[in-house]
Amino acid sequence: MKSHTKHLTLTVPARMDFVNITSQVEQELQASGIQDGLCLINAMHITASVFINDDEPGLHRDYKKWLEELAPFDPSPERYHHNRTGEDNADAHHKRQIMGREVVVAVTEGKLDFGPWEQIFYGEFDGNRPKRIMIKIIGE
Amino acid sequence: MKSHTKHLTLTVPARMDFVNITSQVEQELQASGIQDGLCLINAMHITASVFINDDEPGLHRDYKKWLEELAPFDPSPERYHHNRTGEDNADAHHKRQIMGREVVVAVTEGKLDFGPWEQIFYGEFDGNRPKRIMIKIIGE
Amino acid sequence: MKSHTKHLTLTVPARMDFVNITSQVEQELQASGIQDGLCLINAMHITASVFINDDEPGLHRDYKKWLEELAPFDPSPERYHHNRTGEDNADAHHKRQIMGREVVVAVTEGKLDFGPWEQIFYGEFDGNRPKRIMIKIIGE
Repeated sequence: MKSHTKHLTLTVPARMDFVNITSQVEQELQASGIQDGLCLINAMHITASVFINDDEPGLHRDYKKWLEELAPFDPSPERYHHNRTGEDNADAHHKRQIMGREVVVAVTEGKLDFGPWEQIFYGEFDGNRPKRIMIKIIGE
Repeated sequence: MKSHTKHLTLTVPARMDFVNITSQVEQELQASGIQDGLCLINAMHITASVFINDDEPGLHRDYKKWLEELAPFDPSPERYHHNRTGEDNADAHHKRQIMGREVVVAVTEGKLDFGPWEQIFYGEFDGNRPKRIMIKIIGE
Repeated sequence: MKSHTKHLTLTVPARMDFVNITSQVEQELQASGIQDGLCLINAMHITASVFINDDEPGLHRDYKKWLEELAPFDPSPERYHHNRTGEDNADAHHKRQIMGREVVVAVTEGKLDFGPWEQIFYGEFDGNRPKRIMIKIIGE
């Protein structure tokens, strides 16, 4: 069994935004030399997500509006108990649960074994500071 | 390390529905000869899910109603920016995020190492056309 | 390839609560002797979750309130069709989909390869009875 590990670091210059990281993952897969196996990609911070969906700006705008409705940003201590600790990012911990922490992608013949529109995104919900993303590939 | 890859193709004759694919996954596991490892099952399309829950029609009806409340079908360009691209399936991209893209199941002694009620479902949110599902098993 | 399998059993003395299981997972990782690979942790019951987030009681209180808003407990047969089967836990099947079934964690140099605040939780939504959690580690 071969294995390859990479921690990406990213600073998203907005509180909430989505960044396409597919080409970085493909680069690590190529570096690994792994032809067949599994590739895990996860946010290493708990106010962020890694998810797979469409690279379409209108959809991303829709996601942001929807997540804001489901878990509004509110730094006051009234809505979220978490924000009584001095934090203001309780909403981000909720948004991340909707969008998920991680994806696991099949690797076949040295490539991410993807459907036609699958793209990997880092979802930031409490940005403007460096965050890390894990890429772990195992296989042969 | 052994590995086994299968792409299932499925046409769900409804916009939204859930299909139990557990026996197809078990069949691939048997074909793989893998006794111990991990099995990834994911939707290869971004308006569909693979998830594990109960095979109970009442619950599935509840899920559909709930997902429709959380992200209503609305082909108009007003509610969803995504639907200004000529698409009408923005709601499906949202529903899929709630239900998830994939599951990873442990394989032990040649079987899916499941709890008493776990069943694997393909969740379709923009159906009436062929879609693909990935099954990837690695182990020994 | 090495592999290690453990089923934990847990009885949560509340209908809904979150239990930090990180140290149990670390113990199994140590017992496995695996230095590099992937670790799957999943709920084996379909009214429960395994997720990664912050070990902060205020946030957990926020999650419970939020999940109750998104999918209220209601044993009557009116709101949920599932509860016409004699069950009263339809809400729990919904809450579990928001919080997710499983996490996959990278193992590097014999440790869970975690960001600064990542902790693994078992999320119970229909408690007061024994439930099982799967830990499966594969690697070398």
